[in-house]
Formats: sequence, structure tokens, C-alpha cells
Amino acid sequence: MSQSLDNKKYAPVGVFDSGVGGLTVAREIMRQLPGERIVYFGDTARVPYGSKSRETIIRYSRQICRFLQDKGVKAIVVACNTASAFALEQVSLEFPLPIIGVVEPGAKVAALATRNGHIGVIGTEGTIGSQIYTKTIHVYRPGAEVVGKPCPLLVPLVEEGWLKDSVTIEVAQRYLSAFQESDIDTLIMGCTHYPLLRSTLQRILGDRVNLVNPAYETAQELKALLTEHGICNDGGKDEAGLQYQFYVSDAAEKFKSFANSILPCEIEEAQLIHIDE
Amino acid sequence: MSQSLDNKKYAPVGVFDSGVGGLTVAREIMRQLPGERIVYFGDTARVPYGSKSRETIIRYSRQICRFLQDKGVKAIVVACNTASAFALEQVSLEFPLPIIGVVEPGAKVAALATRNGHIGVIGTEGTIGSQIYTKTIHVYRPGAEVVGKPCPLLVPLVEEGWLKDSVTIEVAQRYLSAFQESDIDTLIMGCTHYPLLRSTLQRILGDRVNLVNPAYETAQELKALLTEHGICNDGGKDEAGLQYQFYVSDAAEKFKSFANSILPCEIEEAQLIHIDE
Repeated sequence: MSQSLDNKKYAPVGVFDSGVGGLTVAREIMRQLPGERIVYFGDTARVPYGSKSRETIIRYSRQICRFLQDKGVKAIVVACNTASAFALEQVSLEFPLPIIGVVEPGAKVAALATRNGHIGVIGTEGTIGSQIYTKTIHVYRPGAEVVGKPCPLLVPLVEEGWLKDSVTIEVAQRYLSAFQESDIDTLIMGCTHYPLLRSTLQRILGDRVNLVNPAYETAQELKALLTEHGICNDGGKDEAGLQYQFYVSDAAEKFKSFANSILPCEIEEAQLIHIDE
Repeated sequence: MSQSLDNKKYAPVGVFDSGVGGLTVAREIMRQLPGERIVYFGDTARVPYGSKSRETIIRYSRQICRFLQDKGVKAIVVACNTASAFALEQVSLEFPLPIIGVVEPGAKVAALATRNGHIGVIGTEGTIGSQIYTKTIHVYRPGAEVVGKPCPLLVPLVEEGWLKDSVTIEVAQRYLSAFQESDIDTLIMGCTHYPLLRSTLQRILGDRVNLVNPAYETAQELKALLTEHGICNDGGKDEAGLQYQFYVSDAAEKFKSFANSILPCEIEEAQLIHIDE
């Protein structure tokens, strides 16, 4: 192996999201690729992304990719569905790094998993409005019936910590009633916050509907990508000391406490940076 | 009157908020000061402010005041409770313009209006956490009992348009139950979104509790301030053509449509600008 590839192998993976949601993706990477180092950025000053325009999301994603590139990452995971929907194509063109999003992996597994070809997708206004899940599912399963439903209140409810609350159940029931006539057997949780509501969603939908968490599939795809490029880290060399580094654009303490409630490891610090400067 | 004062008299008033909430303040200014021109800025790319830190809110407010100053405004109204709580003092020091917020007017009227001295305040996490309403009320009514309650879900519910929905009633009931033991007779709607929920809040609290909308008092204070400086515009000279100008940092069409649903006039355009550049 060349010196250059060897250096790359030990470089961290960059992961970013509008805030804490992408931690569900970072968690899967930690579980499935325990040798990899991670630099995580959460854009907590500008959260949420779900109601913002394509142009704004591209501009923000570009700033973040530049930051991660400066941190020497070997690949980037766009761990936010809205940013994957709006900005992945553009930043992939602009940066000389392998970059993957969460939409393609989630769409692919749903297309392969459905038995009756009826798939539901829940996500932010941006993600659902972009129709990206429908388009990507049709690549893998032409003719699948895909029904999308924006659920703007689910992110604030998760952020409020009302994960199994009667209000959350009522709101989720109302959103999910959009699928009543579609006979879906598969539902994509198309926002990285939603896996935290998995048990609530499953109870409403019943066992017949299979819930897809794109975070799991994204970690699988990252593994395949790093292997393909010959830059997988088996954990043999941990030169930098800290395996996981966290950066945020605001409210570092709050982020740290949320992260420590869902990650398999303890975060010691989340560093504050001004991403727009 | 000097030429300089005369020029100032016909200059517009700057009004800003994290997004659409401040339109409830702009609406009051339009009603109470029909001769004034307004330049409104809504920071729709970075909304909401309520969960962000003091440092970030000061940075954002500074950028916006600079923009409004460049537009030649004669005074600025910080039409956002969180920005009033965190940034008003700082930007007042930095900019050579009269600047007022929404907290002082609301706190003052509540302090004068309460009969039993028990006042409730609802607002964002930032506003309530800052204790600014309590401190300001005590200036006008030392010894008043002030109980604050952050209501983070009310803004997303308003943005979703669920103004009289059963879910909104349930969420509001839960938040307002914080006041059950305090025997409040006055409640400050300490977030510019909340006046849109006035009838829902009033129904839950009953007629015995007086709801204070700081927007109304803020327009009154603006009038007093402009009169004091001798720069009130009686509408006698409308040199610039457009009386009301609207700028946003994202999603101009969505803003325009919301604005047209609550303002007494029709907006023709909301212009998109990059406030962080």
C-alpha cells in the first residue's frame, strides 16, 4: 500500500447533519465500523433544515464540507435527509472526496424489501417536496407505488423529548393516516430524528409494516465505499488520540448531553465553531 | 425643522424578527402609525431563535442591524422576544440609532395591569431562561410574583397552521398547567407567534386572565420614541414609492403568502438576501 493510501486509511470520516439527528447515523457507523475515526459536525445554529430552500441548504452544506475537508477527512457522510435531497449532487461535484447521503441507501433497501410494491415515506417538507425518494426507489423498482408525507412537527416533538407522549402519538397518527388507503407494507423513516420514534411509529402502523431506518444501510454503504477505495481503517493505528470529534455551530453543552443519551460512547467535548465565517 | 431632521422624519423604521412572528408587531405599527414606512427583515434561513444561545443571537442581530442601517432606517424595532432578551442591550450600544425591543413594553403593561400581582409569562426557552421578563416587571412592580414557562412546541404548531387544533389545545393546556398553583390574573404572550393563538389560550385560561400582547404596547412605545426625537412621519411625503419593504434570508414566496394572510395590506414582493455575507 502506498504512503498516500496509508495516510488516507487512518484519516477520519466526516459526518454532518443540521443538528443532533445525524447522531443516529454516527451511532450506526460506530457500531458497524468500530475502527473508523469520525469528525461530526452538527449545524445547531441553523437547525432545522427541513423547511429551508434548496439554495440555502446547498450553501450551508458547502460551508460544512469545506470545514470537514480542512479537518482532513477521507470521505463525507451527509447524515441529513434534507441535505442529501438538496445538496448531495452539488457537493459531490465540487469536492474531490467520496461523499454519500442517506437517501440512496434507504430507498434501495425499501425497494428490495417491499412485498406488495407499496412504500410510504415520511420526512421534512424539503425531503418530501423534492420527490427524491420516489425517484430513487423507481431506479431499483420501477412501478413501485410511493406515497410521501411531510411531518414537520415530529422533529420539534423529538427535540422536546416527548418520544412516547400521547401528543406525539396523536400527531403521528394524524400524519400516518395519509397511508390508510395505500396499503403500504414498508415505511421509510426519511429523517434522521425519526428512528428515535420507532416504537411509537411501529405501534401505530402494526407489525405488518416494515420500518426502514436509512442510518443502518448508510453505514453499510460507507463500509463498501471505503473498502472499494482501499481506505478502510481496521483500528490498527490511532495516531490522533481522540477517535470521535464533535463540532457544532451553537449550544455545545446541550448537544453533548443529547449525544451522550443516544451514543454508545461518552463524549467529553463538543467544540463550538462559526461555520459561516 | 432642520434639513437633517426632515430627512430622518421620512426615513423608514426597521423591524426584524427570526421569521414571520414579528409580522404581528409590524401589523400593530401599520395600524397605529399609518404614516410610517417600514423595512422588515425576517431571518427565515436561521429561524427559530428560541433554542439558540445568547452569543449566536447577538451575532445574528448585529448582522441584521447593520443591514437595516444600510437601508437608512431612522429607528429599529427588535420584533422578536428572544432577540430582545439576548441582544437588545448589545446592539443598542453598537449602533447610533434608537432601538427598542418588545420585552420592556410588554413587561410594563403587565406590571401595571395585574390586580393581584401574579403574572405568568410564556415564551421560548431563550426568553424564559434569560429571566428578562421577571427582572423588567420587578422594575415597575417590585414584589410581583412572576412565573415563566417555556413553550417550545407552540411556534412549530403555529408554523404548521394548527391554530385551533385539538393537538394545539392539548399542548397549550399542558404548558399552561404550570400556572395552576400561581393564581395568575395576567399572562404575557412573550413570543411574537403567540398572538396568533390568542383565542385558544384565552379559552383554556378563562376570562379571568388578561392576555398581554407586547406587540400593541411596542407600537405605542415606538410612537412615543419617534415623537420624542421629533422624527414622526405623518405620511405627508412618500418619496420612495413603496411604503413597506420586506426582506428575508430564505423562502421568500412562503413568507409572502404567510404575510398576506395576517397583514392589513397586500405584499407584492419579499426580497431574498444573504444576511451572513
